[in-house]
Order: sequence, then C-alpha cells, then structure tokens
Amino acid sequence: MAGSSFGTIFKITTWGESHGKALGVVVDGCPAGLELCEADIQAYLDRRKPGTSAITTQRKEDDLVEILSGVFEGRTTGTPISMIVRNTSQISADYGDIATYYRPGHADYTFDQKYGFRDYRGGGRSSGRETIGRVAAGAIACKLLSELGITVRAYTKAIGPIEIDPTAYDDALRLSTPTAMPDAAANEKALAYLAKARENMDSVGGVMECVVDGVPAGLGDPVFEKLDANLAKAIMSIGAVKAVEIGDGVAVSKKKGSENNDAFISNKESCDMTHNPSDDSYNGKACCSFISKATNHAGGILGGISDGSQIVIRAHVKPTPSIYQPQHTVNQQGEEIEIQIKGRHDPIVVPRAVVVMECMTALTVVDALMMNATAKMENLKRIY
Amino acid sequence: MAGSSFGTIFKITTWGESHGKALGVVVDGCPAGLELCEADIQAYLDRRKPGTSAITTQRKEDDLVEILSGVFEGRTTGTPISMIVRNTSQISADYGDIATYYRPGHADYTFDQKYGFRDYRGGGRSSGRETIGRVAAGAIACKLLSELGITVRAYTKAIGPIEIDPTAYDDALRLSTPTAMPDAAANEKALAYLAKARENMDSVGGVMECVVDGVPAGLGDPVFEKLDANLAKAIMSIGAVKAVEIGDGVAVSKKKGSENNDAFISNKESCDMTHNPSDDSYNGKACCSFISKATNHAGGILGGISDGSQIVIRAHVKPTPSIYQPQHTVNQQGEEIEIQIKGRHDPIVVPRAVVVMECMTALTVVDALMMNATAKMENLKRIY
Amino acid sequence: MAGSSFGTIFKITTWGESHGKALGVVVDGCPAGLELCEADIQAYLDRRKPGTSAITTQRKEDDLVEILSGVFEGRTTGTPISMIVRNTSQISADYGDIATYYRPGHADYTFDQKYGFRDYRGGGRSSGRETIGRVAAGAIACKLLSELGITVRAYTKAIGPIEIDPTAYDDALRLSTPTAMPDAAANEKALAYLAKARENMDSVGGVMECVVDGVPAGLGDPVFEKLDANLAKAIMSIGAVKAVEIGDGVAVSKKKGSENNDAFISNKESCDMTHNPSDDSYNGKACCSFISKATNHAGGILGGISDGSQIVIRAHVKPTPSIYQPQHTVNQQGEEIEIQIKGRHDPIVVPRAVVVMECMTALTVVDALMMNATAKMENLKRIY
Amino acid sequence: MAGSSFGTIFKITTWGESHGKALGVVVDGCPAGLELCEADIQAYLDRRKPGTSAITTQRKEDDLVEILSGVFEGRTTGTPISMIVRNTSQISADYGDIATYYRPGHADYTFDQKYGFRDYRGGGRSSGRETIGRVAAGAIACKLLSELGITVRAYTKAIGPIEIDPTAYDDALRLSTPTAMPDAAANEKALAYLAKARENMDSVGGVMECVVDGVPAGLGDPVFEKLDANLAKAIMSIGAVKAVEIGDGVAVSKKKGSENNDAFISNKESCDMTHNPSDDSYNGKACCSFISKATNHAGGILGGISDGSQIVIRAHVKPTPSIYQPQHTVNQQGEEIEIQIKGRHDPIVVPRAVVVMECMTALTVVDALMMNATAKMENLKRIY
Repeated sequence: MAGSSFGTIFKITTWGESHGKALGVVVDGCPAGLELCEADIQAYLDRRKPGTSAITTQRKEDDLVEILSGVFEGRTTGTPISMIVRNTSQISADYGDIATYYRPGHADYTFDQKYGFRDYRGGGRSSGRETIGRVAAGAIACKLLSELGITVRAYTKAIGPIEIDPTAYDDALRLSTPTAMPDAAANEKALAYLAKARENMDSVGGVMECVVDGVPAGLGDPVFEKLDANLAKAIMSIGAVKAVEIGDGVAVSKKKGSENNDAFISNKESCDMTHNPSDDSYNGKACCSFISKATNHAGGILGGISDGSQIVIRAHVKPTPSIYQPQHTVNQQGEEIEIQIKGRHDPIVVPRAVVVMECMTALTVVDALMMNATAKMENLKRIY
Repeated sequence: MAGSSFGTIFKITTWGESHGKALGVVVDGCPAGLELCEADIQAYLDRRKPGTSAITTQRKEDDLVEILSGVFEGRTTGTPISMIVRNTSQISADYGDIATYYRPGHADYTFDQKYGFRDYRGGGRSSGRETIGRVAAGAIACKLLSELGITVRAYTKAIGPIEIDPTAYDDALRLSTPTAMPDAAANEKALAYLAKARENMDSVGGVMECVVDGVPAGLGDPVFEKLDANLAKAIMSIGAVKAVEIGDGVAVSKKKGSENNDAFISNKESCDMTHNPSDDSYNGKACCSFISKATNHAGGILGGISDGSQIVIRAHVKPTPSIYQPQHTVNQQGEEIEIQIKGRHDPIVVPRAVVVMECMTALTVVDALMMNATAKMENLKRIY
Repeated sequence: MAGSSFGTIFKITTWGESHGKALGVVVDGCPAGLELCEADIQAYLDRRKPGTSAITTQRKEDDLVEILSGVFEGRTTGTPISMIVRNTSQISADYGDIATYYRPGHADYTFDQKYGFRDYRGGGRSSGRETIGRVAAGAIACKLLSELGITVRAYTKAIGPIEIDPTAYDDALRLSTPTAMPDAAANEKALAYLAKARENMDSVGGVMECVVDGVPAGLGDPVFEKLDANLAKAIMSIGAVKAVEIGDGVAVSKKKGSENNDAFISNKESCDMTHNPSDDSYNGKACCSFISKATNHAGGILGGISDGSQIVIRAHVKPTPSIYQPQHTVNQQGEEIEIQIKGRHDPIVVPRAVVVMECMTALTVVDALMMNATAKMENLKRIY
Repeated sequence: MAGSSFGTIFKITTWGESHGKALGVVVDGCPAGLELCEADIQAYLDRRKPGTSAITTQRKEDDLVEILSGVFEGRTTGTPISMIVRNTSQISADYGDIATYYRPGHADYTFDQKYGFRDYRGGGRSSGRETIGRVAAGAIACKLLSELGITVRAYTKAIGPIEIDPTAYDDALRLSTPTAMPDAAANEKALAYLAKARENMDSVGGVMECVVDGVPAGLGDPVFEKLDANLAKAIMSIGAVKAVEIGDGVAVSKKKGSENNDAFISNKESCDMTHNPSDDSYNGKACCSFISKATNHAGGILGGISDGSQIVIRAHVKPTPSIYQPQHTVNQQGEEIEIQIKGRHDPIVVPRAVVVMECMTALTVVDALMMNATAKMENLKRIY
C-alpha cells in the first residue's frame, strides 16, 4: 500500500533508504505566500543529524537539504515543495552480513515477510534516516504555525530512570544539551548513565515530551479524526515509540472523576474587553473565547477537539535494538545462530528523535488547522 | 472536515447523536461472499448496551440493529452495508440545562468553539452512543477475521487500583462479568471499589487490554501507516482514552536493549513439514514462516509490521467526567457558576468500552490485511 | 474497495439497492450553521422520482426522505447528516429470471465477475435508484452554494436528434417539462420522438448540460485535482453517461488557437469602484478580480482552475439498455439464449438524470470551494 | 489542497516547475518484486521529450531520469520509488514579460487568483513539463500491467480535420511518426496541415485515442469509483483536454437502445476446455469467464466495471494556447493591452500528449486492479 504519505490537506510524502542515493519529501498543500528558504529547513535537520556528540552514531552526514520546487522569490507558491538530502557516508560493507539473518528488535524479518526480500543496507527504509523527510516537512509546518502564533517544543523528559525536574525547565538547554534535556543536572546524570550502558555494550530507552502553545480551541474532529487520535498515530509512527500519552495519560486510569476533571474558569475580568451589548460580544469575539481551565489534566484536548490550553503529549521510546552484545537469532534458512552486530549505532534513540516528535506534532496540528477552516458556514463567508 | 470515516479499503462511516432519531454506520469495502446476519451484529451491540448491570447507566435501550443494504441471501454482496439502531429512550429533559453551560471534562465547550453551537441533548455526537456504529461495523470485521483464523479479544485489565491476575485469566468471564474482567476475584474487588466511588458521587478510571491472535507476519506499512500507529489512532479515537501502549509500552523507556530485544527462534523442528529442496520451501511456504520469537516485548509488531506473534495493546481510560458532585464551571455568558449534573451516567467507562476497543482493533487489522494483499507482485499473480 | 464515497472535505457515502429495504446517504463535512430541513431535500428528490409522466417507469415511489442526524433546531451541526428513503414498491417477481442470465448493456455480468454473485433484483446496486443518495446529498450542496451566491442548473439539451434552441431557453420550463427541456417546442418534438421509440419497443439517448454561475475564480487545483477533472469523474460516474465535455468540448479538436483562445477584458470601467492608490485595490479587492473574458470557449476553467466565468459541462447519455425487443445473450451456464426483458423501465434516462447531474456538479464545486479555502496564508489569517 | 497525488493504492505524487531546478515524482504502493531500471522509464520519457521534430518546441531537454529510491538489485522493494529529471535548458528571459499580464487560454490569471502570485517562468507548475512525473510513473504502471498480460496503447486519432483510417492502423507507426499517428498517409497530411497553421502563426487541436487489451472483467467499482469515471478524471486532468469519451462516446446520444446494446456471446465452443460437471467449471474457471460481446459500443466497461473487452477512451485536445499572433488581454493592473507571445511552443499538443494519455490510463488501470484484489472473500483466502 501507499504508506509513505501523512496528512489530508497539508500532505507529505517521504521516500528514501539509509544507503540509497538520497532521501527526501514532497510537501503538497502548503498554502501560498509563506516565506521559506533552505536555512529554515536546515536548522531542524541539524537537530537530528548524526555525529554531533558522543551519544550519537559516528556516521558523519551533513544532511544538507536542497529545495527543488514550490518556492519562488522566497515564498511558497502553493505547489508541491520537493526537498532532497543526498546520502554521502554510506558504508554498506558493514551491513553485508545482515542480509542473511534477522536482527532482534529490527524490521528485517517483517520486511522479508511482507515484501519477499529487502534492501538490507543500513536497514533500508526502516532506518532512522527515514525521518529526514519528516523533519524537513515538519520544519515548514513549524514555520507556518509560528506565523499564526503557535509554538511546538519537544524535549527529552527521561533517559532510563533519570527524569528532568519540571521546575528546573530551561528552554535554551532543550536545543543545546546532547541529551536534549532542558535541565542541566539531569543532562549530566543521563550522560553518565549512557556512558555506563555503552561500556556494557547495551542501549537504553527514554521518554520524550512535546508541548504546543497557542492552539486555538476548535481543532480536531469529534469521532475518528480526533486531534489526540491523530497525534497518537503521528507519534506512534516514529520508529521505537511504544506508548503515547495525552495530558495525564496513563495516570488517569487510577484517578477519580473529581480529581481528573478540569474546572472551567472565566477570563472575562482579566481581559481588556469592551462589551457590545447588542450581540453580547467582547471585542467582537464570542464570550466563550475568554474561557480557560483551572488545571490541564486533559492535556489541551476535550472530546478530540483542542480546548485552547497547552497541548501535552508524551512518547515512550524503546532502547536502540542494535546492541554490541552477542545475540541469539535465526537466519533466512531458519537456522538458529549467534550474532554480533557491527555498524555505527546510537546507544539511545531519544535525543535525536525529539525533533522528529516536534515535527510530527506540528504536521498534525497544521493539518487539523486547515481541516477546521471550513467547519462553519461563517468561516466560508469570511473567505468567499 | 469529514471526520466520521475510518479505514481505507474496509471503510466505515458512522453517524448519529445520543438523542437524535437513530445512530448507524455504513460499511463500504467489505468483500463479497461473507456470511452475515443481524444476529452476528447484535451479539456485539449487546456487549455495549446500557442498563445491563448496576455499574452502567440506567438508560434502557435495546439497541436493536437493522441491516438495510449490502447483504443478499445471507451473504455480503460487496456493496455498502448500511446498519441502523433507532433511539427509543431519549429523555432530553434531563439535559435541558446543559445547553447553557460547559460540563468539565466534556466536549460541550470545544463543540461550541468549533461549530458555533451544538446539539446539547445527551452530549449529541460526543456521547458514548456514538460508538454504536463502531461496534456494528467492528462485528463484521471480527467475523471476517475469524474466517481467516484471526481472533480479537479485549477485556478489562484494571479498574482504579484493582488489576487482574494474568495467571487467573479465564476467557469465559471476559464476556460474563459486569466489569468485563476475566478474573473472578478481581471482578469482585472492582465491584466493591465501584460501589464505594458511587457512594461518594464519584467515578473511576481503568485499563483495557486487547490481544489479537493468528495475525500473519507482514501486515502494516513501514512509515506512516505502521500497524501500531493505526492501532494507536483507532484506540485513542475512543472517547476517554488518554494513553495507548503496544507490547511492553511505557515500561520500555526504563529498559535496556539487552532486556527488551526479543530473540528470534526457529520452529522448523516442531513443524510437520515436508522440505522441498528444489526451492528450499517447506510445505510450499518460505522457510521464514517458521520463525517465531522467544519473548514478545514488542507486542507482535516490529518496524510497524506484524511479526506473527500475538498483538498486544493497552488503553488507559479516564474516569467518567459526569459525576454527581457539585462542580465549578462557566456558562455561555462567561460567568462562573456551580453545577450539579443530572441524567443517567456510568460510574466507569471501561466495561462497556471493552467491546469498542475490540471492534476498533478488528477494523484496523482488517484494513491492514486488505492493504497488504497487494504488497507483492506474487500476490497479484495469485489473483489475476 | 470502498467505492461509494465522493468528495474529500464535503464527503458523501451512499448505500442501498433497488429492491432492498431502503437507500440513503451520509453527508460528512457539511459546515455547521446551514439552515436545512427535509423539504429542501424533497424538492430535489421529486425531480428524479419515477412515475411522474408517460416517459418514466411506472414504478410508483414517493421517495420520501427522512433526516436522521446532523441537523438540530433547523441548522446543520457540522456532524454527519444521515438521510434515508425507504423502498415501498418493490416487485421483485418481475426480476426473478434475470438472476440466471446477463442483460445486454447492463452490469449483471460485470457484477458476477467482480463479486462472484449479485443481488439481481431490479439491478441491485447498479440500478438508477442508487442516485437517490446522490440527489439527497446534492440538494444540501446546492443549498450551501446558493448561500454563497452560486447557482447550478442542469437541463436536457438533446433527445436523440432533437436539440433545444439556446435562444429559446426558458429556465422555468427546465423544471416543468416532462423532458426537462427548457424549450417548449423542442419538448413537444422530443415527446413525439419518444412515443415513436416506445412503439418500436426501443429506447433513445440524449444530452444533458449543466451550467454554474457565480463561482469565484480560483477553485480547483493545477494537476490531478483540476476542477474539470473532478467534474468529469463526477458526471461520468452517473450510470449511462459515455462522454463528458467542458466548454466547447469535442469541438476544440477541430479549432485553431486563434479561434479557441478567450481574450481577457477589463471590467474596471463598468464597476462601481473606489480606487485605493495606497495598495492599488478597488473596493478592497485586488484589481484582477475585475477581469473577465470576451468569450467562454473554455467553459469557465483554465488550467484546471475556475476563471470566474460560467462553468459549462455536457454529458452524453446512452439509450436505456432495458428494451422490450427480443435480444440475444448468454446465461450463467454460458449458453446463448434469446430473452425479452420485463419490468418497468424508462424509454430514456436523461430527463430524470438531469437533477443527478446538477447534484454531482454541486457536490464537486462545494468540495473544491472547501479545498480552496486554505490555498493562501492570507485566508488562514482571515480565519485564525 | 494537496492536489498533486493520483491513485489510492498505487499512488503517485508529482512535483516541479517548468523553469525550476528539477521535476519528479514519487511512486508509493508499487508492489515489491517488479524488475525495474532507468531504461524502462527513459523509453517513455523520450516519447514526450521536446525538440525531436519540427512540430515540437525547440527547447532542448534530454529529460534524463534518475531513480533515487525504492529499487534494489534491479527490483522494486515495495517502498516509495522517487524519480527526478533535472531541468537543463531553462531560458527564463523569454518569459519575463508574462509576469505582468495574463496570456489568453493559459492559467496565469487563475493561478494569480488562487494563490495571490505565481512562478510565471515558462508557466511554472501549469507547464506541460508537469507531465514528466506522470510519464515516469506511468512507465512503471505499464511495466507492471505487461507482467499481467495487459497492454496500453495510445495514438493520435485526428489533427484538426485530418483523421486516421482505422483500417490502415499500423502499430509500429504509432511510436515513430512525428504526429504519433499510426497511419502513414494521415501522418503526411497532418504534417502539411500543421506547417500551414505554423505559417499563419496559429496552432491546432486534435484527438487522442487509447486502447487497453487484456484487462480482466471485474475492475472498477459500481458507484463513484467506476472505472470509466476514474479514466475520465485521469484523462481530463491532462492539460488542454476538453472532452473525454468511452467507447462510442458522444455518438450514443443519437442512438437507439437496439443499436447500442452489445449482445453477449459464448466462447465455450471455441475454447479448449475440459468441463468438470461436479462444480460446473471449465478448466477450473467459472463458465462466465468464457463470455464475450458481439460488439463493443460500451468500450469495455459496463456499469463502471470492466467487461473483459478492449477498453477504448478518446480525448479531445484544444489547440496550443501559445500562438504568435497578436492577442488582446489584460495586465495585472487591470488594463487592456495587446501582446505577442515569445518563447518556444509546440503548434499542437497532441503528439507529445499521447504518451501522457497512455500513462494516465495505465495508472488508473493499475490502481483499479489493486483495489479489486480484495473484492471477494475468495481472493483474500487465496492470499492468506
């Protein structure tokens, strides 16, 4: 099936293999008139690029993006934006032997079962390099959202048992620590923990969190296209993610309704509003625009629709399956064998996946925003 | 947007409001030649029907389904199957006052923000009755899967802090206990816990689990249409679900790679196979069909594609937001008020939602099965 | 496959068979706040209803529509609108024998080949009654368009060799003549021609035309989702249509560029405009809004995008395949036989199909309108 | 909207502008295991490449394709196939002046209205070069179909008033004459006609025809996804096409049912069949597989589903809108002006569009084939 597209109006299609000639993405449905240049994209790609610290794979790739279409005189034209990143550091020799057996925790076996054979070099399409297209597209989504006052931020919340202290949150660190933890102390502890795991030829898991601020109430649909449902799909589609939470997430199953409900509160007083008694509007807006919530257990989504509060999503990521310890597995002849994986692998997926989560979240929100544009006759009349 | 459809080839479209004339679903893309009658559907609807025990709403609805099209002489014809359930016990008077204010934890406010107004009666489209269409369609998906040797089973894993003992699992209980717990002792404890919560005019959350057996390896796609991504969307789209886990789920974030990887093992010896040396096949199948895993931390999915093991999904469900305690909220005029909710509400969502989870899972698996049918030239040649 | 849905944002799903219990449609994605009642729908259904004149089948069906969801207090709520029409005059006995052989020009054979068997009663899903759902949904699309100043009108342009005189066009006749011809003289001649064909136990073909006025420039997309491409699909999907033309249509293949190009002209002078020199706008609109064309060979679409002129579409419809003359065919055993068709059939498809063409056109335009709403950043900023 | 994708299972996404860096396409959903190399694609691109004869634009482009992903060791892997063609002969200076005014018959005005501005160089996305992606993808579709015994052939049927003589049809000429006419005499006459038009600084229209042989009965769906509906969309989406016919097309509107119905005939006798009386099958096939039609007015499609006969489609193409005669138009300031178009333009679109029609037809048929694969339970059981 055609499984490499995401989104309905703002739709992206990614392509490319780890050791092929290039990877890329086509973004179709981006509105015309958005200022865009390659540097906007490169900034995001640089956050997922390998070889930047001791805790990422030593494969060196500059991952330079080229925009091939859809941008004219510095602005998007409304036509498809095609972007390409050439592979430059393929060392396929490292992967020759994985052609013949199935690495535990990887997709080698399932690809063979599905397609009859596979491009085994570096994992082919199932490699983490597949996310290059997601990030290039997501950079555009982030830029579009920022034009509308919406910001998306993801960071590492935990690495193994080491968690960040939310009260120590420092947004600048999010983009500068090797762990992508926005907490200097936690970052240090996590680096030590990772060094230990690496010594043991092992890998570790972790938790990513993403928050979205500035989303207007009303995005998402009531039934299957709930905003949280689409976020869950978007985030679960990132390789190695095994659980997704919205707001209080798993904790809600042990709570009472009286603890979990978020009381609505009025912001009428705190707003600088002029009341128009003729239509009961405040500064031309319906009154309910001035409503918020005392708490946010719901993570910004009620009944599948954004409620105007901060949207909060968490993803639980499994340890990198490529470990250097000897492992037991089966080869294509069905014989049990012992293997030892070579190649260049991250001891943890999380720090480089954080920007992928940010991008998938942005892509989901942009599409919901565009879907919602025609939810009311009133909106149509504002345009036509 | 058009948000009431689910699936790509096996596609369903649900409709209907809690206090409207009826609810229903159109199932489009069901293969021709499946034996089907109303009793097949009714068995599933009866599992979600209200009024069957002390822990469900006292609204009495028989929820009798009528098949209006797509079935001829006891078999599906390949054309759309339209099913309808008439509402018979609407008592809208109970809901008159919720027209004017926003119930905490409900979608009243977000609907008003999205659409400008809402059918407030019984929650309208955001009511749990919306799932009638999902269950009617899911019953067909389950029947289709069973023809191919695939079974889907969901049950209650926890209610508040009360968890089932997996070693005491009794599948018959799953369909007969009021809690849908497959463990008699846990069911008793949970009923006591629920009685206590009800006394306190409160509600409780819980955990549902769904397992799928018999899924062949190869379903799901590598990137955005990963089987686990689509399951996450399907399950997160059920009202009140706030987290979804696949396999070991949230636990993976604290694990090491050496603990989390599932070793492949060979079933060659244990199979009753005749080896054909000319093409190295066993009973006409490729050798790799006889591979399985020593453990199943992955929950049956590797790289987004089924691996032939049992598929395991868990959902964390928030407490029913409708509680009888006084609550603080805001009305449509933006004024803060105290409210006390009336009407007929379940103290817990989980027991009736279990069959919805089962159905959404079955719908996702059927669609993946049909998508996968054309993944290889070999399959096309088998058909044409 | 799921082939009973049409549209991307304004999406409809039809269901039902000729001799089943009922037929219907679910309209998903209709914006909230549109005034709507059953009478709005019934007016369109009455135009395709059988038994209203000597030139339609004598099957009597009132085709009364019931709205089951999605409308509250006289307005659409934004949730799916489910509509149902019960079958009341099925006389399946007439069709018993067609179970065993293949009627020429019908879909009996192709259904058997596709699905393995078929609901043969009255043609099942391939009956013209399938269009009930299209018309019910199209009535909503027409109402929505009229709110935005867009009108859609279809009529019979020719019946066999009898063509209307465009200079005699009388819009009132379009809805009142039995032929749906907007020209009294042509209507008379066509009725005589039809009477003759009926005497000969034969049927005749014809041409339908549909014009859309008030469509703003900018609808449709440049490549595959061209407005004319989607119109062609919409109209060719009506049973019995064998050709679709846009604007001058087939005539263009014999023309020169100098004859076929439509010169642009300026309406600046004729408009009551106030020029704002600061941004070179006229009454707040860009100047190019005041451009039109001297001729309209293009039929209102350039490069797949509406140009602000009248949209013109024509459909060529084959003669009803059900004729009462003896015919040669093959039965399910593969034996050649002579047959004589019974039942109640229209001698011409066109007069009742005209409203179907109008509805399919409206559905296509509405969806294009909603798709186009987010084509520019400027539009998004107008909404958010 | 995202309008640059075509197909549901076999889905393509094209991108690129006339004078941008490159054009290309991503083919997603191609089954694994199809042998494929760049030469397979190049053969089709060479048929639409400019500069090959006196009747095409003198822009010289080699249009060399590079496959960037989805092929491994000479076979498709089931993952997206990304293909790119670099632009090498852009002479944008020729187009500088069209930035400021609207060429008659072109999409300049409608793009400005839709997007607010446009990449005017060479027509940008609305250029005929957009079809490079369609042809590259269509070449794969053609190869896949040929593996299943299905062949697709398009050719020029008429140029202005010059028509081919069907009895003189010579398939070899189809690929070798500059007009793509499969009739040597007609080709000569058409070349003379074109030379005359060119002398008059004018352009001419024409007719393309495409036939598909070997399609099994059963492809296409009964309602909106009729095979002819999807073909109509596919072909009407080719720039400059203004009418699409299936089978007898426009001629049916003047015919009687008794003339237009195709009688079914049995091929039982002519087949080398062994009858199995136990299940009434012949060589293991249902009897109805041996049914064909005495005539083919229907063009191979009944009720939207292929009937096993040759599929016949015709497209009417307008004269190239770029003519060298002076023309009247309006500039972006809304002022009426006289213009004279420069640049390099074909005097007729048809000869180079023929391969585009062939490719769009193949893409439609492949997708229908894949959609139909799961129409029957029987097929699913053959795969799983």
